[in-house]
This record gives sequence, structure tokens and C-alpha cells, in this order.
Amino acid sequence: MTADTQTLSRIAPRSGVAFELNEGERLTVIDPEGQQVADLLAFVRGDVGEVISNGRTFDYEETIALTTGNRLWSNRSNVLLSIEEDTVGRHDFLLTPCSEATFRHFYPGKPVHRGCFGNLAEALAPWGIDEDRIPVAFNVFMNVPVAADGSVSVLPPTGRPGDHITLLAHRDLVIGLTACSAYDSNGGSFKPIDYRIDR
Amino acid sequence: MTADTQTLSRIAPRSGVAFELNEGERLTVIDPEGQQVADLLAFVRGDVGEVISNGRTFDYEETIALTTGNRLWSNRSNVLLSIEEDTVGRHDFLLTPCSEATFRHFYPGKPVHRGCFGNLAEALAPWGIDEDRIPVAFNVFMNVPVAADGSVSVLPPTGRPGDHITLLAHRDLVIGLTACSAYDSNGGSFKPIDYRIDR
Repeated sequence: MTADTQTLSRIAPRSGVAFELNEGERLTVIDPEGQQVADLLAFVRGDVGEVISNGRTFDYEETIALTTGNRLWSNRSNVLLSIEEDTVGRHDFLLTPCSEATFRHFYPGKPVHRGCFGNLAEALAPWGIDEDRIPVAFNVFMNVPVAADGSVSVLPPTGRPGDHITLLAHRDLVIGLTACSAYDSNGGSFKPIDYRIDR
Repeated sequence: MTADTQTLSRIAPRSGVAFELNEGERLTVIDPEGQQVADLLAFVRGDVGEVISNGRTFDYEETIALTTGNRLWSNRSNVLLSIEEDTVGRHDFLLTPCSEATFRHFYPGKPVHRGCFGNLAEALAPWGIDEDRIPVAFNVFMNVPVAADGSVSVLPPTGRPGDHITLLAHRDLVIGLTACSAYDSNGGSFKPIDYRIDR
């Protein structure tokens, strides 16, 4: 089956989903309207103590700027996903999913939302993944420059409508994926995220 | 009891320890010979699902360059430790503890060592902390510059003999602490680490 016959799934603004991705399958995450972020988690199916790790990925890839050709490593030093295509070239693996606590901290005057963290926790619960097992997500399309003095800032994503990233699964995985809920990460607008699985 | 009457403890080269640190107590980590790294972990005692998180720390401190005045946050958005004194000013919170897998990857011609990861896992086991619960450590005195293109490198630490960092505990904690075992992180020489608890 070719990619163009695959069904596109839509993640509604400020929500999240989880699904199974088998070894050898490809996941394409698409920014349909531009300037949106998708938090991505990957756990090894059937052994969810193994999960993507920003630290192990920075170790082995020797960079924090991950794009085509880079791999996402687990806490047990195995490759879980590799990036095969990337039309944006800017993602973040430093910051955690937005949560009730981050909303209270960063947006004290605004309504509190459970954020990507709450959305991921609910979506992943059926696979036995509890909140404390949720690490830093790979924040697809998120624009977090690090200045020379080490300070980090969250800028509007650079993605345009239709931009996408394609990841190959190296293990049988459970994927968590969101359309981000935070004001800063998507320039203050809440938009959907689309994705497609090529089996 | 004043600081100068406290006992200094020594962590032998390429080993690690774990101990309890109570809320309000101070931990001082000292580099006795210069150019050595100590991987530090902090778990909430009695509820070890809560642990320091590099991502939550980068979120709330808005920097990856942590020094005096900065706080180390947990995965549940609570402050576990704050940095009160720091005579070096360069530490790392990006990279994971060295392990058998990282030795095989980075030093294929050299003997494999269980590294800081194995040392921490053994030292922390009595508190019910298993390997999958070990996140990115706060790598005291580790010198990991991030270049403008995002690439990271591991350079010899800048610490001189007697340099130290003092952290205040904001909760009752279990601390894991090592004298690092990797070749790169300490300029190829294995040295001890000293520490002191001010109760």
C-alpha cells in the first residue's frame, strides 16, 4: 500500500491520542495549518519501562538539533525511531509537555489546562503507562533556541501548512501524540495536527 | 554544628554512593583534585516516582546553564534542590550517566565499565529504585558546550582542586552521587569526589 492511499487522522486542537506503531512502519506527523507543535512519546510495547530519552539521544547523536538522519534512543540505549524526512528541521527535545503546573507558572492570568501532559497521560493509560513514566517528549516542530549563555526561549514554530516529519519505527511501539495546548509553543493559536501511518 | 566540623566523605574513583538528605540540609560536592565530574540524582524519599527532571528544570529555570540561584525541579514540578554556592559555574544536565552501552559505543577499544549508571543503580537499589527510574543526572562539574548548530561536545571539566557546589534540599531526599567513570568527562583521568552534609 502506498502512502497516498493511507488515511489521514486528525488530532483536535489541545488534545492527544495514543496508538500502536509496529517495527518497520512509518509515522508521518503533519502540520496542516502551520506554526503548530506536536509532543511525541514512544514506549516499547509490552515493556513500557523502555521509552525515548532526550539524554541518551543527545549522547549518541552528539547534538540537540535533531533532523533527517538522526535517531531517537531509549533509556536502555536502543534506537526506537529514526527521522527519514523532515521539511521543517527544527524540533525540541529539551522541554517537558505542558501541564496544569506549567500553565499556572507561565500563564497565571489564563485558564488552567491539563495540557499535553494530561492529554498524553490519559491516552497512554490503557497501555499501563502512568504519569511518572512520562519523560521529556520529542516536541515535533517546536522552536526552542538556546542562546550562547545557555538561556532557552520558546518562539513560534517555523512550520508552514503541510510541513511534515516522517519517522521509522525500529521496535513495536506505543506512540503518544498531541496537538499542543500551550500558548507559547504555537504562537498563541491552537490548531490541529494530522498524522498518517504507512504500514 | 558548623560546616568546618563536618566530616568529609570520599567517593573512590569510578564508584558511587547513595545517602539520605533531609529537607533543610545542605550537600556540598567537592572536586578534590580538579577536572572531575560527579553525577548527581535526587529522588523524593518514600515516593521515588518523583525525581529530578532536566526538562522540568529547563522549563522553569529557562536556561540549560545552571549555577548559583538556580533550582533543580522534579518531574512533578516541585523544587527538590537549589544551588546556593558554586565556584565552578559549569555543569551539565543534558547527557545521561555513562553505562556499559555508552562505553561500548564511545570507547570500543577500551575495557567496558558499568559506569556511573551501574554505580548509581547499585547504590540506589536499597530504596526501591530500579534502573528504568534513573533519568538524566545533574552532572556536577561536567563541561558540555552546545555549539550554535546544536552539536554537543564533552570537554575536560574546568574545576580546580577544592572547587565545590552547595545544594540545599527542599524535600526529604535520596541522593545518588558518583565519581565519574568515563574517559571523556574527566579528561581521561579517574579521580575521587568528596562530599559533605551540613545538618
